[in-house]
Amino acid sequence: MQLVTEDNITDLAAARWATAHDPRTAELMSALVRHLHAFAREVRLTEAEWMAAVQWLNRTGQISDEKREEFILTSDVLGLSMLVVQMNQRLDPRATPATVLGPFHIDGSPELGYGEDMSEGVRGTPLFLHGRVVDLEGNPVGGAVLDVWQADDDGLYETQHAEVDEARLRAKYTSREDGAFAIRTVAPLGYTIPMDGPVGDLISRTDISEYRPAHFHVRFDVPGYRPLITHLFQEGADYLDSDVVFGVKEQLVVHYEPHEGGTFPDGTPVEGPWFEATYDFVLQPA
Amino acid sequence: MQLVTEDNITDLAAARWATAHDPRTAELMSALVRHLHAFAREVRLTEAEWMAAVQWLNRTGQISDEKREEFILTSDVLGLSMLVVQMNQRLDPRATPATVLGPFHIDGSPELGYGEDMSEGVRGTPLFLHGRVVDLEGNPVGGAVLDVWQADDDGLYETQHAEVDEARLRAKYTSREDGAFAIRTVAPLGYTIPMDGPVGDLISRTDISEYRPAHFHVRFDVPGYRPLITHLFQEGADYLDSDVVFGVKEQLVVHYEPHEGGTFPDGTPVEGPWFEATYDFVLQPA
Ligand SMILES: [Cu+2]
Ligand SMILES: [Fe+3]
Ligand SMILES: [Fe+3]
Repeated sequence: MQLVTEDNITDLAAARWATAHDPRTAELMSALVRHLHAFAREVRLTEAEWMAAVQWLNRTGQISDEKREEFILTSDVLGLSMLVVQMNQRLDPRATPATVLGPFHIDGSPELGYGEDMSEGVRGTPLFLHGRVVDLEGNPVGGAVLDVWQADDDGLYETQHAEVDEARLRAKYTSREDGAFAIRTVAPLGYTIPMDGPVGDLISRTDISEYRPAHFHVRFDVPGYRPLITHLFQEGADYLDSDVVFGVKEQLVVHYEPHEGGTFPDGTPVEGPWFEATYDFVLQPA
Repeated sequence: MQLVTEDNITDLAAARWATAHDPRTAELMSALVRHLHAFAREVRLTEAEWMAAVQWLNRTGQISDEKREEFILTSDVLGLSMLVVQMNQRLDPRATPATVLGPFHIDGSPELGYGEDMSEGVRGTPLFLHGRVVDLEGNPVGGAVLDVWQADDDGLYETQHAEVDEARLRAKYTSREDGAFAIRTVAPLGYTIPMDGPVGDLISRTDISEYRPAHFHVRFDVPGYRPLITHLFQEGADYLDSDVVFGVKEQLVVHYEPHEGGTFPDGTPVEGPWFEATYDFVLQPA
């Protein structure tokens, strides 16, 4: 009979899972067994703690649906998401760095033209963000689609609103032949991650700040270039030093130049205060 | 600005979670961060694999409810449950060892008398299991409640039947003053863990046997003694060497003596083949 003991169970379990038919699955599962067991041994996990973990996972699964990705949030706040991004996106230092996807991307955003407004009906300070999409040598990348999404002035994404019938604060912009693009929106604000679930429960038992600094998300999937998922952050924003999901990169912080009235850079008249930001996205060839 | 890099993110995340107000939570969360990150680094987890893991966790959460504990099953098949049991139940070698609880225990089972039948209406070979509950020195432990549960001839527990209106194959027996107890039931069969969920998906991609050897569960919670959660296995049963949840201990394997007709040890007449098993449970003082 196979005698299972506290000493040999890790080797037994790792060896079993190494029988996975796909070699990569075998590698992943055995390594998972070893690290999970090492964790349990290091902290000498109690049975009550084990049960609390099971119940936490159950709650996390129950609160998750198409609109709420509590497991992604878990990975984000543990720094795992950003670790995985960085391991897989070791880009040329000249390229715009990648950061976390986050749980709020929606496929199929509407296509807008140069400088068109993706923030209609949403309160906030107008922001005109323009620049170029270029390659590592600075050559223009025309026809690049910028899939952009951001939170509203309540810190909520479209997926967090129960009833929204139109696309809200998300759009696809396309760079012109000379690589130029222009996004018109409202300046995003910092926001808190959802704190009413199991991740919030954990965070609230620590000194961790639950906020993300003001940012919007951009996703590129341009033929011939590596796909890029990134953010732009506002220079001087709160929480840049404490982003709860570890997503901030220095190269992704952009200055917002304040203006008052006049016209946007594309000539459209504007009243009251607004911001202009300039940023060049640098894509790495595939 | 706090610069997050692939090199420093593990230290940053572990340090953040070490701010948990409860020192044990701080210890657990920091260690979890370190081992999760070490796993991801060791296998160089890809973004597609990360996403597959998130989706697997979502499916596992969605399939779980009061009657189906897919996260416990996950822990069981990874050997984590049995590791935790063994770390926390380092009992005297004379004591009956502990094993996994499993996901099928139900509170509030009916109380039956000495030798009463907990298997009414269920097909199977009758089994009369009797013996004594004793302490480490062999002194009788009277009034000890044996909370017993097992699967039926389809390998299913009561919680796995959609519509069962009465307690099925579970009961509480109490030891007499001299420590003697007697359980009447049908011999349990080996069974497969539920294979129609995310855990089954994984198992089916390996050479791992999805079966558990024939067993029933017993739980003791006797004042003055350490609580004990254990199984008894049938000697010579299939899958003793490959129990999918690593639950078999040599001291928990018991011989089933075959009989034909006559009377049970308590004098009740019986027709056809039946089994007798004798086992003494040894409880460790608290
Ligand atoms: Cu580890
Ligand atoms: Fe965001
Ligand atoms: Fe069982």
